[in-house]
Amino acid sequence: MPAHPLAPLLAPRSVAIFGASNDPTRISGRSLRYYREAGYKGAIYPINPTRDTVQGLRAYPDLASVPGEVDFGLIAVPANLAVEAMEACVAKGVRGVVMFTAGFAEIGPEGRALQEKITQIARDNGIRLCGPNCLGLFNMRIGHTPTFSSFLEEGPPQSGPLGMVTQSGAFGTHLLALAARRGIQVGVWMSTGNEADVAVADGISFLADDPETQAIACYVEAIKDGAVFAEAVSRARANGKPVIAMKVGGSAVGAAAAASHTASLAGSDAVYDAALRQLGVERAKTPEDLIEIAYACTRGRLPRSRRLAVMTMSGGAGVLMADAAEQEGAELPPLSDEAQKQVISWVPFAAARNPVDITAQALNDPSLLDKSFDLLFGKEDFPAMVAFFTTWASSPQMAEPLFKAVSGAAARYPDRYFALSAIAAPEMQRRYEAAGVGLFEDPWAAVKAVAAAMRCAERLMTPPLPVPAVPANGERLPAGALTEHEAKRILAAAGVPVLEERLVTSAAEAGAAASLGERLVLKIVSPEITHKTEVGGVTLNVPAAEAAGAYEQLMARVKARAPQARLDGVLVSPMLTDGVEMILGVQHDAVFGPVVMLGLGGIFVEVLRDVTFRIAPFGVEEARRMIGELRAAAILQGARGKPPCDIAALAEALSRLSLFAAAQRGHFTSIDVNPLLVRPQGHGVAALDALILTENTAAPAH
Amino acid sequence: MPAHPLAPLLAPRSVAIFGASNDPTRISGRSLRYYREAGYKGAIYPINPTRDTVQGLRAYPDLASVPGEVDFGLIAVPANLAVEAMEACVAKGVRGVVMFTAGFAEIGPEGRALQEKITQIARDNGIRLCGPNCLGLFNMRIGHTPTFSSFLEEGPPQSGPLGMVTQSGAFGTHLLALAARRGIQVGVWMSTGNEADVAVADGISFLADDPETQAIACYVEAIKDGAVFAEAVSRARANGKPVIAMKVGGSAVGAAAAASHTASLAGSDAVYDAALRQLGVERAKTPEDLIEIAYACTRGRLPRSRRLAVMTMSGGAGVLMADAAEQEGAELPPLSDEAQKQVISWVPFAAARNPVDITAQALNDPSLLDKSFDLLFGKEDFPAMVAFFTTWASSPQMAEPLFKAVSGAAARYPDRYFALSAIAAPEMQRRYEAAGVGLFEDPWAAVKAVAAAMRCAERLMTPPLPVPAVPANGERLPAGALTEHEAKRILAAAGVPVLEERLVTSAAEAGAAASLGERLVLKIVSPEITHKTEVGGVTLNVPAAEAAGAYEQLMARVKARAPQARLDGVLVSPMLTDGVEMILGVQHDAVFGPVVMLGLGGIFVEVLRDVTFRIAPFGVEEARRMIGELRAAAILQGARGKPPCDIAALAEALSRLSLFAAAQRGHFTSIDVNPLLVRPQGHGVAALDALILTENTAAPAH
Repeated sequence: MPAHPLAPLLAPRSVAIFGASNDPTRISGRSLRYYREAGYKGAIYPINPTRDTVQGLRAYPDLASVPGEVDFGLIAVPANLAVEAMEACVAKGVRGVVMFTAGFAEIGPEGRALQEKITQIARDNGIRLCGPNCLGLFNMRIGHTPTFSSFLEEGPPQSGPLGMVTQSGAFGTHLLALAARRGIQVGVWMSTGNEADVAVADGISFLADDPETQAIACYVEAIKDGAVFAEAVSRARANGKPVIAMKVGGSAVGAAAAASHTASLAGSDAVYDAALRQLGVERAKTPEDLIEIAYACTRGRLPRSRRLAVMTMSGGAGVLMADAAEQEGAELPPLSDEAQKQVISWVPFAAARNPVDITAQALNDPSLLDKSFDLLFGKEDFPAMVAFFTTWASSPQMAEPLFKAVSGAAARYPDRYFALSAIAAPEMQRRYEAAGVGLFEDPWAAVKAVAAAMRCAERLMTPPLPVPAVPANGERLPAGALTEHEAKRILAAAGVPVLEERLVTSAAEAGAAASLGERLVLKIVSPEITHKTEVGGVTLNVPAAEAAGAYEQLMARVKARAPQARLDGVLVSPMLTDGVEMILGVQHDAVFGPVVMLGLGGIFVEVLRDVTFRIAPFGVEEARRMIGELRAAAILQGARGKPPCDIAALAEALSRLSLFAAAQRGHFTSIDVNPLLVRPQGHGVAALDALILTENTAAPAH
Repeated sequence: MPAHPLAPLLAPRSVAIFGASNDPTRISGRSLRYYREAGYKGAIYPINPTRDTVQGLRAYPDLASVPGEVDFGLIAVPANLAVEAMEACVAKGVRGVVMFTAGFAEIGPEGRALQEKITQIARDNGIRLCGPNCLGLFNMRIGHTPTFSSFLEEGPPQSGPLGMVTQSGAFGTHLLALAARRGIQVGVWMSTGNEADVAVADGISFLADDPETQAIACYVEAIKDGAVFAEAVSRARANGKPVIAMKVGGSAVGAAAAASHTASLAGSDAVYDAALRQLGVERAKTPEDLIEIAYACTRGRLPRSRRLAVMTMSGGAGVLMADAAEQEGAELPPLSDEAQKQVISWVPFAAARNPVDITAQALNDPSLLDKSFDLLFGKEDFPAMVAFFTTWASSPQMAEPLFKAVSGAAARYPDRYFALSAIAAPEMQRRYEAAGVGLFEDPWAAVKAVAAAMRCAERLMTPPLPVPAVPANGERLPAGALTEHEAKRILAAAGVPVLEERLVTSAAEAGAAASLGERLVLKIVSPEITHKTEVGGVTLNVPAAEAAGAYEQLMARVKARAPQARLDGVLVSPMLTDGVEMILGVQHDAVFGPVVMLGLGGIFVEVLRDVTFRIAPFGVEEARRMIGELRAAAILQGARGKPPCDIAALAEALSRLSLFAAAQRGHFTSIDVNPLLVRPQGHGVAALDALILTENTAAPAH
């Protein structure tokens, strides 16, 4: 095993079991039994002051009495003895601890205090602590089994290519059972429970370095630290391992941010969803998806591209798989004309385009199988194939010829991805799997899982998008309320273009500002007025020649309606109408930090909730992906005969906003650029209005 | 069996098998073997001119030689002998035929002609013909097995509550295998092949009357006749049986209709989807969905409402099932305060709201199970529950106590729907199913399937929506091109409100029309000008006082740009701006006849494809549902502080349009009402423009 920082926890050379019971059915005895059944090669030290031996092993009255070094301690003692056990671990130089014990943060303030105490002991002494209130973990590569999961009651699990990390131990056990029934071997599993120290991300990081792990599946209720999670996922990606995550439930969005537009839309699940996408994690919606994608990603190979050959013996199944491919994002390019002719020469009534329907004719002539596989993997060079063979894999007549042909093709084309939709007995399934071929009963599920494997492979083959450096020496945001003018000046300095504007304080100055454009917009500037329209503080579409008069009228109106407000003047800017209005926003997410939102203005955001998110900071390419995710992206591309908008400038502005937000992390509550006008290609973007709330800002009532 | 018209095909008293082979492994011998294995009680007459006995039964040289009456004939002879066999059936008075034989419509024009010939023989002589080119059918209620599906190779299937109809025999066999592995017994199955006579709808109709069938699952590649399908589904509904359909692929939308706006949007799958919804069919997207929903609907009971209790022993699974419930449309109302206190009194750290997490505590105290079930089904009166028990159903310690508690509750509450998410061995699964409790390994899948059963039950409990009578003596649409003015007059007569307007032919008349409103719209009227704007034929926002002048200018412009066109005058109407613009359209669908489309105007239709469809005719309630399906429905309800629109008037207009389209079926190509302005509540709707194309209309180039 490599010397990963978590090795003392997940791959120790020696273990001590506190309170180990001689009864192998009790929680405190089960783990010891599992170690012995799994053939753990390191030293095992049962700690039990009342016995000389435990389950046949020499027992020690306390950890200090153990003669050799101890890497790892399993603590299952009652909560009131947990601190003592931790201190014993410190004294002995233990570096990894699993704590089953419940009665900590999950039971209330008293338990939380106790949890903080043991966490502090761990932190201060370089101990990595898994739990408390967890079901433990196993590493079947070495037979390390500090767990009482009932999954091990049926004997030691066979080690294999999947790594699994689950916050919930009970649900993790369920997933382990589902995986085993699906024929997936899980080599390493960790449940993280209360996550006092070690979190799901730590398990991902360890598995990223584990040479036998091909893919990592995880079950998350809440990510503890977005940055640590991102780091772990990036490590897995660098090592060529897909991460598949199921994230359930949702956490509350910061209520302090409710004032701004973004807050009412940033459902935290949407942020999680965007973050997982941005980090290159395959999100599974259901346990079944998690298992099926994990199955597809642990066949020893991954599909090289999205090009898929579909082969079938039933026309109906072919149509269905083509439907599935379109929906799930696999591409079904047609065979070459020559290859199509070839297929027709074998079976006159075959469909030869793709899906290739060789019909039931292969029942009479199994050589059609070899020929078809060679045509599709060989001559036509498809990197991946799903073939539907219904019950042939379990038919007395066809089972062996089919296996011979399929396993032969898998061997002849070791870099191709081959999945079957077929019903077979478990033994036959295992034979196919040993040959590197995955089996799916449902043809739709087959295409769906292969398409997910394609996405996973594509991410691994694509270098991570560059993230520009966050400016280090930027101007710190001032505390307190910012006017629109100040907010715009700050954003402009950060590289978010704002509309050219002039702050004027007299009718004469307003008249002089007429050079800005033929038609002007006048807006009141006051730190005490958040809703300018309501006090008559905005005048649109003013002819340049009438600017001075419009200034007088506007000031008179506002003074009448908001007599107490300090008025700093009026902003004059050109009135632009040639573009599409977008909304940009930044919120502070409790997990991921500053999160940038993008939506099309007006009804699209408010009625359709057509918005998308990214964790700051990010580069221009990531911003382009973000834009492409909007349902309304077509409008920016020039729908309805309108010219295409300056998407490059929008992407640049988004990236700049994200860099600004990252640099100012902790110094603002929310940023809104609403609207940002995206003008026709080549004409750039311009923020027409902006609002920055800092912690000291009184949130305006909406 | 009731005397359903298809009884001679699906439940005959005597059968003849043409070309029956003595070899029970050959296609022509398999079916006979299946009959005998299934214990068919009627008379079986093998027809084989070369043998005295076939598989131990007396054989006859031809059908005429058979002594008794013959209800049913199985034809597996080569295509060139099929006509002869059909004629023999006619002579003998056979009323039902299954024809396995291939080589008909699927191979080209010659085969199509032969197929038409046998179809005509069947029609002329009252024979119901299944096939040709099919795998046949089985009715295990009586051991009727005219099929060579390999599904019967493992012995006669056990009869049971599911009926299945599949267009494809090969894929049908796959579905039968999946259903059997899931523990669902299929009592009656029919594959329809080329559907020369009998189609999927006929199978549904038969199963609707079959007393032992609880639910009907079907697999459809194309519906042959929408009206027959609708009739069959309505029969199933009247008899309390859910219909679950998987529809794959898609059929081409009539290209002739491409001219109008609707055509470019009416993807045929969208029409199928709408039609299935309108008919109350549960559409399954994948084979797995079909099987899981069929499983959920054949447990001997259905959920009485959407209220669902979720119970769990793992908090994580509870969160996941709550996610699933929200997504799939099941409701999780919280328990009463009293009940929540009760739960907490049993287990202090339980979650008691709903999901109810009784934690692993039930391992120590199984009486918690009975108490919880009684609380949820009894005191709290939940009509349905999904409970997560992970591997308990297969644990040595818990399997029996859990079964006892669950089966006891199912017996105590026979009208409640009870599903478990649990992993169990097949024998234990069968025990639960016998107790009326369904088992699902994946908790998400459990909630999803139960939610589908809830939808199915809701449809069965809701009386079908009333459909007004189609006006019989309406004015027949004239052939040839219609002007906007004519189209509007016709639609207005049909009850679709149009904007008040006046056709004027002089500046003086235009001036007199100024009384229509303060601001007016002028539009050219010419049967030869489809795109009025392009010839300068529309003037908006004309002050009433300037109407005469605007008339002169408009006419001059159009005469200059379209000198050849016949000009019938100018339409003057008030300019309305107080409302939301919708698009209504009607297309003729090859399967379902006139189909009405609804979408919000502008970008919503063109960019977001936010449209919905209904088969004509339909009533106001159906129209309301249609409106509610639009993503943009919130806009009509008064989003962004605007007043709510007159949705009642929109629904009425939609229904009227559908009645008009049904009455004029066959006499138009397409109808577009674009836009229809939906004004604030109480102010009604008004068609601002309309286009009716008839078959003789030259489709305008867009």
